[in-house]
Amino acid sequence: MTELETLLAEQACERLIHGFARANDGRDFGTLAAFLAEEATYARPTDPNNPIQGREAIVASFLARPATRITRHLFSNTVVTVESATDARAVSDVVLYMGAAVEEGVAQAEPVLVGGFEDRFVKRDGQWLFLARKGSLALKA
Amino acid sequence: MTELETLLAEQACERLIHGFARANDGRDFGTLAAFLAEEATYARPTDPNNPIQGREAIVASFLARPATRITRHLFSNTVVTVESATDARAVSDVVLYMGAAVEEGVAQAEPVLVGGFEDRFVKRDGQWLFLARKGSLALKA
Amino acid sequence: MTELETLLAEQACERLIHGFARANDGRDFGTLAAFLAEEATYARPTDPNNPIQGREAIVASFLARPATRITRHLFSNTVVTVESATDARAVSDVVLYMGAAVEEGVAQAEPVLVGGFEDRFVKRDGQWLFLARKGSLALKA
Repeated sequence: MTELETLLAEQACERLIHGFARANDGRDFGTLAAFLAEEATYARPTDPNNPIQGREAIVASFLARPATRITRHLFSNTVVTVESATDARAVSDVVLYMGAAVEEGVAQAEPVLVGGFEDRFVKRDGQWLFLARKGSLALKA
Repeated sequence: MTELETLLAEQACERLIHGFARANDGRDFGTLAAFLAEEATYARPTDPNNPIQGREAIVASFLARPATRITRHLFSNTVVTVESATDARAVSDVVLYMGAAVEEGVAQAEPVLVGGFEDRFVKRDGQWLFLARKGSLALKA
Repeated sequence: MTELETLLAEQACERLIHGFARANDGRDFGTLAAFLAEEATYARPTDPNNPIQGREAIVASFLARPATRITRHLFSNTVVTVESATDARAVSDVVLYMGAAVEEGVAQAEPVLVGGFEDRFVKRDGQWLFLARKGSLALKA
């Protein structure tokens, strides 16, 4: 790969991480599904040893979460490592703010969770997708 | 646009978002003004439905804020979408820490605000500028 | 430098910032050492006026920190300025979560520190390295 190709792949994978956070927090599960390989696995930070298997099951697990919750998954320190033209991985830290939705005004956040994600990506039909996401928790604030 | 041109535009817009946060938090309003198109609009996260109209009025509104306040606007999850060689938009999450300045030691932060920004950019005379910034709030922590 | 060369340098320096945070938080001090120029200086956010001099002394200072502490240094708003093919600098904000490690479950964070880093980089033998890191504190939350 050229340096430019590597840079474009890094950028595409970081974009997936940010886009997934936004789709998750915005309950836009169609967009979220389009970011996942069909055989993708997803392990939530709160349950890192029980990965959900397959895009369909992952989306179903997100749909099952109550719409009355507000979440913000804030990613930082992402480092993407491109392993080939079609394989990459990344590590990130994440801060999770969440609270019950309110009719008016701004929702009150519950204690904040600080953790991370280890991600694997695959490129198919010209598009980078999540192959595996593994969350973890480090601290609650 | 080539892939490189798109990447450079994305990078320039993300740089504006980071630079604006720094200029705002550092009360460097000359730098902040230089990031805004003359007809730019700015809607604060705490008042998203009342955008301030025009660079001059935006800078005046920032100048009116008390210099005895310390703020840090921490952006994450930014995704820039380049629409043409001269038009782009972005979405970001933001965490706002703020507190009263102290003579010695480290200032105590008040409750943290978690929100977002939707931005529109325009490129003029070879430079990307903010055309519109719209803030919003999601949670207080 | 071409636009691509500048972009690659910016990306490499941001990657150092993220990688250093991860190496520090993960107590991977071999990796951390490899990110530092031999004559690098490092001033902690909590002690910005007493920079530690030299890679060896910096690594020793990190090794001296108790392994029973969990930390997460979360960087945002990084802006890298490439000054030449071998010199660059960057400014970032940082949020520091930390707490005592626990046997089971998730560690409780202490009050959060919000600050920043000013960094200088040098490129040697094809690799960007930290030449100087200067931390500062703005708020505690």
